[in-house]
Amino acid sequence: MSRVYNFSAGPAVLPEEVLLEAQAEMLDYRGSGMSVMEMSHRGKIYDGIIKEAEKDLRELMQIPDNYKVLFLQGGAWTQFAAVPMNMMKHGKAAYIVTGQWAKKAWQEASRYGEAVKVASSEDRTFSYIPDCSDLDIPEDADYVYICENNTIYGTKFWQLPNTKGHDLVADVSSCFLSEPVDVSKYAVIYGGVQKNIGPAGVVIAIIREDLITDDVLPGTPTMLKWKTQADNDSLFNTPPAYGIYICGKVFKWLKKQGGLAAMKERNERKAAILYDILDQSRLFRGTVEKKDRSLMNVPFVTGDKELDALFVKEAEKEGLVSLKGHRSVGGMRASIYNAMPEEGVVKLVEFMKRFEEEHT
Amino acid sequence: MSRVYNFSAGPAVLPEEVLLEAQAEMLDYRGSGMSVMEMSHRGKIYDGIIKEAEKDLRELMQIPDNYKVLFLQGGAWTQFAAVPMNMMKHGKAAYIVTGQWAKKAWQEASRYGEAVKVASSEDRTFSYIPDCSDLDIPEDADYVYICENNTIYGTKFWQLPNTKGHDLVADVSSCFLSEPVDVSKYAVIYGGVQKNIGPAGVVIAIIREDLITDDVLPGTPTMLKWKTQADNDSLFNTPPAYGIYICGKVFKWLKKQGGLAAMKERNERKAAILYDILDQSRLFRGTVEKKDRSLMNVPFVTGDKELDALFVKEAEKEGLVSLKGHRSVGGMRASIYNAMPEEGVVKLVEFMKRFEEEHT
Repeated sequence: MSRVYNFSAGPAVLPEEVLLEAQAEMLDYRGSGMSVMEMSHRGKIYDGIIKEAEKDLRELMQIPDNYKVLFLQGGAWTQFAAVPMNMMKHGKAAYIVTGQWAKKAWQEASRYGEAVKVASSEDRTFSYIPDCSDLDIPEDADYVYICENNTIYGTKFWQLPNTKGHDLVADVSSCFLSEPVDVSKYAVIYGGVQKNIGPAGVVIAIIREDLITDDVLPGTPTMLKWKTQADNDSLFNTPPAYGIYICGKVFKWLKKQGGLAAMKERNERKAAILYDILDQSRLFRGTVEKKDRSLMNVPFVTGDKELDALFVKEAEKEGLVSLKGHRSVGGMRASIYNAMPEEGVVKLVEFMKRFEEEHT
Repeated sequence: MSRVYNFSAGPAVLPEEVLLEAQAEMLDYRGSGMSVMEMSHRGKIYDGIIKEAEKDLRELMQIPDNYKVLFLQGGAWTQFAAVPMNMMKHGKAAYIVTGQWAKKAWQEASRYGEAVKVASSEDRTFSYIPDCSDLDIPEDADYVYICENNTIYGTKFWQLPNTKGHDLVADVSSCFLSEPVDVSKYAVIYGGVQKNIGPAGVVIAIIREDLITDDVLPGTPTMLKWKTQADNDSLFNTPPAYGIYICGKVFKWLKKQGGLAAMKERNERKAAILYDILDQSRLFRGTVEKKDRSLMNVPFVTGDKELDALFVKEAEKEGLVSLKGHRSVGGMRASIYNAMPEEGVVKLVEFMKRFEEEHT
């Protein structure tokens, strides 16, 4: 077996330790005589798995008691509808559009009420985060929405917007658990797990309790009403059980690494290695404003499409894979989530230097 | 490692061969250097996996070309809303209520239009399938809905209802791929995979193409509109990728067993072993009408609650697990899906005979 360094934007690399454990338990979870895929979600063993996953997540993120943790299905895309369906009590919300995912969330919300675009960085291909210190947020807006880390463009909100007292909803799919977070600053934090936490098919939503009510928009499907799963500890119906089990293992792994403060340090160190070469290189350059750079997704280009394509191809031969950039930015993108070891980034940078020498 | 015989109603037993393969490929899928959990759903490798899964399923079920196959999320529960949202063009549908899942589907549909209960077997705890040869189906009903196999109660439609020319929608979660099916008799066949096909978190929907349109109820979330995934070969957003990969392995396994005709034979043989003892026993008896018996879920009771509990407990010691019946029926339930080997059923029956001797 030879593992590659996988820079995929998501689904993405998982800790090898986690995969080894899952492999060992595949046919017999801890003497139960069955795989976690095969067990009733109503049984004691699975109940232990999901409860422990929630407990570990609460500990990692220091989630206050007045927030519920939900394990959901349907991807962030389903929450693009669920957020307005659960929260648009006055039919209005403010959206900050910093990338394609925020834009899609805004468009979906527009189908359920007045979704006001209060800021955008689309004018320069979402290559920066707009100043959100004094936005014109409608007083009767039910919430302010952001996508905190923009996977495609490689930007991140390093300062949360001034919501002027409104509830903040954040899609954190691509920066989930990458650093400590003050949960109390948010009303809702949610994201797909397939970038930084686990296999695709699980969404984790952390929701302040007062927002979980029966007072949802008419026609909200039972499965999109947050209260449905909140009242049933995410076991209203059969959950994506195996995915949650893997997430639970990643939570344990994160605790062993020293928790989110340690992950932040490590992620900063990894990103610095990559951004340093981008700032010094004669061939490669980053595509976003320095102040807004993501620690998770690092897009870069040579400025020559053919050379970009050659880079991606040659890198693959070195076991550095999934480096092709998103079509809307072009070039390359290295996603360096929690589970990407520092040596993967070092190997990438070494290869970039060799490639630069050969092609300048 | 010692595997048990797992009679869970779902999530349920999977073929050991499938689990062994998944185990072997956990850290390195066929030389890719990564787990299927870690790969981009936009990459060539995963595209091969999902396309091949669809091809094998089409072959197994002989799905006509004018039907789309969708891999979805959110459980059957999400389809309880999606079905009316996509199909209730005239605001009316006919529901046949033969168990709790059909009832929940009917209740959810009632939120979107007039869902007429045209037949029910609730009067006798859903222990039979009502005569559906001449129901009073409203002429302007958009569809007739059934739950084809009732997991909790252990009944199955052995004859499809006379829909009087209306489209038939069937939730087949607990009989999916247990026997050959004439797909052309249905408008929509759908089900969660966690009983007979794979890990929880994937729904497969087989939908006649003319029903897949933009003409859905106002307010239908993008993710609940069937066209969203149909137009994108189930890759509109990140799919539950690992679950689909396991389903694909089960399809290959089914083909190797001889396909659905062979599975039907095997399932009939397995069920007969169990029903025979129920019909002969002085202690145990089945709970449903003989003509409506399911091949997949076999509920039975002794008539004495304490004895039932003792049976479940003692069986567990013999490695015969998850035999406790659903609370609404009580007693025991043996779910004997495709992946339950015949020897599991034989072991169960041997134990039943021993238990009967000791307790009568």
